[in-house]
Amino acid sequence: MSKLRTIELDKTRELHVVGKSVSKPDAWEKAKGGSGYPVNFRLPRMLHAKLLRSPYAHARIVKIETSKAQRLRGVRAIITHKDVPKASFTPYYTSPPMALTLVRDLLVLDDRVRFVGDGVAAVAAETVEEAEEALDLIDVEYEQLPAVFDPEEAMKPGAPEIHQGVKNNAAISPVLSFGDVERGFEEAGSIFEGKYETPRVSTCYMEPRVCVTQYDDMGNLTVYSSIQAIFGLRQALSVGLGMPESRINVIKPPYIGGGFGGKLEMSFLEPVCSLLSIKTGRPVRMEYTRSEDFLSSSRHRIRMYLKTGVKKDGSFTARYCRSVLDAGAHATQAPVVIMVHGTFGFLGTYKCANRKWEGYCVYTNNVIGGGYRGYGAPQAAFAVESQIDEICEELKLDPIEMRLKNCHSQGDPHPEIPELNLSSYALRDCISEGATRLAWGQRSHPEGKSGMVRRGIGFACVPIWVSGGYGIPDVYEHSGAVVKVNPDGTVSLNTGVVDIGGGQNTAIMQIVAEELGVPFEAVKLTSSDTDNSPFDSGTHASRVTYAAGYAARLAAAEAKRKLLGVAGELLKADPADLEIENGDIYLRGTREKKTTVADVATAAHLPSVIITENGPQVTVSKKGTIMGAVSSAPPANPTPTAALFVEVEVDTETGEVRVLRAISTHDLGRAINPKAAEGQVEGGFVQGLGYALMEEMLFDQETGTCLTLDFLDYKIPTAMEVPRIESVLLEAVEETGPFGAKGIGEPPIIMPAPAIANAVYNAVGVRIRELPITPEKILKALGKL
Amino acid sequence: MSKLRTIELDKTRELHVVGKSVSKPDAWEKAKGGSGYPVNFRLPRMLHAKLLRSPYAHARIVKIETSKAQRLRGVRAIITHKDVPKASFTPYYTSPPMALTLVRDLLVLDDRVRFVGDGVAAVAAETVEEAEEALDLIDVEYEQLPAVFDPEEAMKPGAPEIHQGVKNNAAISPVLSFGDVERGFEEAGSIFEGKYETPRVSTCYMEPRVCVTQYDDMGNLTVYSSIQAIFGLRQALSVGLGMPESRINVIKPPYIGGGFGGKLEMSFLEPVCSLLSIKTGRPVRMEYTRSEDFLSSSRHRIRMYLKTGVKKDGSFTARYCRSVLDAGAHATQAPVVIMVHGTFGFLGTYKCANRKWEGYCVYTNNVIGGGYRGYGAPQAAFAVESQIDEICEELKLDPIEMRLKNCHSQGDPHPEIPELNLSSYALRDCISEGATRLAWGQRSHPEGKSGMVRRGIGFACVPIWVSGGYGIPDVYEHSGAVVKVNPDGTVSLNTGVVDIGGGQNTAIMQIVAEELGVPFEAVKLTSSDTDNSPFDSGTHASRVTYAAGYAARLAAAEAKRKLLGVAGELLKADPADLEIENGDIYLRGTREKKTTVADVATAAHLPSVIITENGPQVTVSKKGTIMGAVSSAPPANPTPTAALFVEVEVDTETGEVRVLRAISTHDLGRAINPKAAEGQVEGGFVQGLGYALMEEMLFDQETGTCLTLDFLDYKIPTAMEVPRIESVLLEAVEETGPFGAKGIGEPPIIMPAPAIANAVYNAVGVRIRELPITPEKILKALGKL
Repeated sequence: MSKLRTIELDKTRELHVVGKSVSKPDAWEKAKGGSGYPVNFRLPRMLHAKLLRSPYAHARIVKIETSKAQRLRGVRAIITHKDVPKASFTPYYTSPPMALTLVRDLLVLDDRVRFVGDGVAAVAAETVEEAEEALDLIDVEYEQLPAVFDPEEAMKPGAPEIHQGVKNNAAISPVLSFGDVERGFEEAGSIFEGKYETPRVSTCYMEPRVCVTQYDDMGNLTVYSSIQAIFGLRQALSVGLGMPESRINVIKPPYIGGGFGGKLEMSFLEPVCSLLSIKTGRPVRMEYTRSEDFLSSSRHRIRMYLKTGVKKDGSFTARYCRSVLDAGAHATQAPVVIMVHGTFGFLGTYKCANRKWEGYCVYTNNVIGGGYRGYGAPQAAFAVESQIDEICEELKLDPIEMRLKNCHSQGDPHPEIPELNLSSYALRDCISEGATRLAWGQRSHPEGKSGMVRRGIGFACVPIWVSGGYGIPDVYEHSGAVVKVNPDGTVSLNTGVVDIGGGQNTAIMQIVAEELGVPFEAVKLTSSDTDNSPFDSGTHASRVTYAAGYAARLAAAEAKRKLLGVAGELLKADPADLEIENGDIYLRGTREKKTTVADVATAAHLPSVIITENGPQVTVSKKGTIMGAVSSAPPANPTPTAALFVEVEVDTETGEVRVLRAISTHDLGRAINPKAAEGQVEGGFVQGLGYALMEEMLFDQETGTCLTLDFLDYKIPTAMEVPRIESVLLEAVEETGPFGAKGIGEPPIIMPAPAIANAVYNAVGVRIRELPITPEKILKALGKL
Repeated sequence: MSKLRTIELDKTRELHVVGKSVSKPDAWEKAKGGSGYPVNFRLPRMLHAKLLRSPYAHARIVKIETSKAQRLRGVRAIITHKDVPKASFTPYYTSPPMALTLVRDLLVLDDRVRFVGDGVAAVAAETVEEAEEALDLIDVEYEQLPAVFDPEEAMKPGAPEIHQGVKNNAAISPVLSFGDVERGFEEAGSIFEGKYETPRVSTCYMEPRVCVTQYDDMGNLTVYSSIQAIFGLRQALSVGLGMPESRINVIKPPYIGGGFGGKLEMSFLEPVCSLLSIKTGRPVRMEYTRSEDFLSSSRHRIRMYLKTGVKKDGSFTARYCRSVLDAGAHATQAPVVIMVHGTFGFLGTYKCANRKWEGYCVYTNNVIGGGYRGYGAPQAAFAVESQIDEICEELKLDPIEMRLKNCHSQGDPHPEIPELNLSSYALRDCISEGATRLAWGQRSHPEGKSGMVRRGIGFACVPIWVSGGYGIPDVYEHSGAVVKVNPDGTVSLNTGVVDIGGGQNTAIMQIVAEELGVPFEAVKLTSSDTDNSPFDSGTHASRVTYAAGYAARLAAAEAKRKLLGVAGELLKADPADLEIENGDIYLRGTREKKTTVADVATAAHLPSVIITENGPQVTVSKKGTIMGAVSSAPPANPTPTAALFVEVEVDTETGEVRVLRAISTHDLGRAINPKAAEGQVEGGFVQGLGYALMEEMLFDQETGTCLTLDFLDYKIPTAMEVPRIESVLLEAVEETGPFGAKGIGEPPIIMPAPAIANAVYNAVGVRIRELPITPEKILKALGKL
């Protein structure tokens, strides 16, 4: 269910394709499990690879003996740390702040293992079964080392050193400070302190990670992988394998079965398959099992110590946070995650003259983390938005009033990107729209509630977010597109950005169709790869519609300019007097159809033959194929904003929470495809619901072994738990965006945990500061356990 | 052996890569039978297809029963004419004059067969053997129709009608006339008439024709084929299958095992596999046997009636030719071939005020023809250059003098393209260089020769040729390229033109490297296809270096402009003051290296991190990926010229001819890669030698069955027959060409037959007017048979 309201309409242009909920052209194919999924990709003579993983959380490999395995029927190659270039890399490399990702702490395979599940060796065999059998025949002698699993323990003197020379196991420990926090606290009427904990959770994408690599006679490596960033993978492989980027071609999958950030970075499979392909000269495929997917990427556990100074009226005088992030055995994306967490998740959210944040990105012997939609912000929002409600409860303030008092306004300076203003900013509308719909005014205090099952309402906001990483120090996140007009009037679109299920392809195709004046159906995505496509920094950070859409619109505009140039030549008209609609070319302002996109594109590079009474007549232009090729940095980084209002029901006997209703209001700029935007909102809410109430990767405290490696042990929401979701799209049209668009990918997932925590408090008067909000925790807080 | 002499050097620019005989980067891979050959391409779950071919030269299919075949184990689909769209097409469509190729007389499969080997039905099965077995189980009832095999018989009233409504079986019958031929003959001192015959021959490419097609869930067809023109194939498939072009993607093969024009057009295999893929949803592969390759394409048999009026001094007063071309059962390329034959092969060769040509492109029940290097000119040259020597013999003129008297000169109007002049034209140099080397002055008359084995010398010219089809009425032949500079300083080059063995890829890569100022090794060809590449009209008409090279140079220049723009930004310098050499960027005129292509390309789309004493420092540009994307018509159509001098030995007892020495002199503009140009010269000579002395497809006179379907029955030259070839490259630098280049592909094959015929006459005094010049014909002419 959705409501779409355009706050400010760009009146200069009538839109024909943008703003329409066209169906994803590959929807039916994808529903059938189409051949475009990387998991369905096969090559002839392909070998199958399996990874031997460490049973210990921390150990040195003393000896590794592969000869028995090597002799097994069907086995074609085995690699261990001895076969791997000694080049440290970070698996996530291209687009985030480079200075941060200079934390290179990873080898493809190392002689030291640092978590249970770390890579030890890999086998390529004729069948999966043979590869698996061979794993059992590899003899590894380990020297166990002391392990540490809690990040604060890991920071203490005397803790095991996980990476040589890294003091206190802190990969990075940034401190950012504005104003004078000490003085701010002195000026405060009240000071609130709280410790908030968020667990490690998995993105639970549906399609497993999979890759197929091929190494040819010319020394070129081709990589097919379920990856969100083809150029990022190329770069990481280049460093990890010590191979020039130009000898690696990463093929863009037509679509992947979900990513959510969990497929942003290179995992074991790509470099391992590559090395096995190089060794055997044959294509090599590896598909992760669900258990391996759990081990390959997860949202980082962050412990937050929040301290806030507030005046009586609810305005902030000082805001302080100390965040301890459990990076696991390798930093991977953690340094970037903690920066986004500290800045966009904490510092930038609400106005306050005195702010300070200390972050600790700490190595432990836990599994590695990775990207996950929201990228540090869901953790921060849980702390920040929970604590605001706690403050309101204490100071008897209305949570809406308090947020409105402290939040930014349109036109304010951007709190995180000095050169920008908040050009389109409709947080206040998001809040008031949600409040009205949920009848916020009728909200009652928990003290007045009784009965076994009690209802409560609550909300949370995304006061600041991104439409990509542009402008965040050192990040530019270019994107590009090549648009080619075919002789049949269709348009080929080559973009290196990957559709991870959110309808990214469809949105970009709509933008191109709109700009060129052709029907949506006329736009066709070509196959793309790192060789053929302009650089794109990948599908992450809510950037695709805004940044890749921007580049695609420029490319389409370039093609249109050329097209109208040829049309003008053929029609002996000034191109400025021509316009294109639905593939037809008119004299501007008239309904006088003069020619078509197809005919002009044909005439531009082919003699165009028209059979007349006097025989065939030929018209020709020397212009050539109508093309636009653009690579560009996005023009700005506007902030989407959002608010989520929920109503919950808490069973005081069982501790169970049911969410009854959710109203998710989003200022996303122009909704290029409202249906797809709603999909983002609904999907994000469901994932956030799991984060709030049930999801948590659990580990054996002694050994560090993950105990939740399948969907029997790891609980995610089913359709039974999902309430009615009202998606409200508020189109605060963004001047710099393609047709006014900005991002929408991540805000939906940031709000559910705090909104539900606040609603639970409103229902039963207990505050849960540690996710997930399980029945046990509620009963314990209610004094019933 | 080669001699390279540059007639006119472009002094403005020092060349670093162009003009060097760099090795083809794929030479070693190709020598090993590399995976890039289409014949080595495989897809998983691929079916194998076979074609049932007609045993009759002309018949109607009364009934066709496939049920028995359908039940055979492994058979997955069968198609007959009933399953084929009724859309007539021409298999060669895009680049040649469109008005001509409007002769659409072909269905993928028809209910009428018109030659022995015509397609009747096709089977797709799990294995090749099963498909072959199934062919035997298809019951076809034919109604035989009267057939005709001689084109002049076919033109007579009452001859069988091969295509409905085509009068006299003439697909086209063009007449071109200049001046007043009748009057020219009246003014002549002498008139010479002769009938010259050339046989049907095969290109004998090494790799068979092969294709693999794939049809996906989205209704898109992907085609991998050993084709010379990917866009031409897309267009022919589109018409033949009744499918929009944008749903067809033709993949460019990395290289193919020879083409020589024989793989220019679509054959049965591509549409048949496509239909079988659509029917089964599985990839389908078909590989022609050598016999099928003989049937799929051949150089047309042309009978020429030449009549020439000459003054005593050897100057022409009238030139007339009537050419009867045996098109076989379908026109395919024959209308274009006969036009090129008549214009560039006859009318344009030598100056004469009064010229007339009548061409007849005639259907017969013979096998179809196709493109073959030289495209109608080898046939014409055999007649024209033989007859000039006959005239000289009669009028006691020196053959060199006579040609120099009648030939064009640099700066003359182009004889075939009104808007052009002969901008670079060094025929006189070619002739004099060859004459000097062969000591032409010492040539003696056959009458003075004796002994069993007699030696003779002779020569022939290419007075006019093309560097592509541009400017020939209605033909533009665009080409394009996308050039992308990678962060490691390498350059990706996407061009839709196919390397058919002549080193086309290497030449274009050299042009790009030269223009950008990077080493040759830095340029990498990307995979290309009709979706992703700008239109290219294919590898034919000696056009690639000139036309595709021109577009690639423009694309590289665009990339260079952008690259220097970013460099200027980074260095705070005027881009005009910068220059690039060997991948390094200098202040113009100094040896002061400022930065590198790699660093600039990196900085253009990625933050570039430099570790300094003060920590990492980041430089960024917003420019994006450095790209140049160009589609263009070639700027002109300069004519390469050439002369071939040969010395032969004729055994008067056996009639055998041995060529002892060949001096092939070529005005090719700048030789981008002299070694590759020599390869063209040597390969063309060897093919021409076969045409002159031994090659001929023979047919049963009664049934029309081809009798020479393998290399036991069809003789081509071996290393034993090939003499010492001296390639002399005369670089008449062409202003409009990329770094001065023009074409070289076809002239080498045009000259051997007449040069050898002239040398044979010089040795033994007999004139053979019908190719090949077999021992039998010589003995007969000598009166010994």
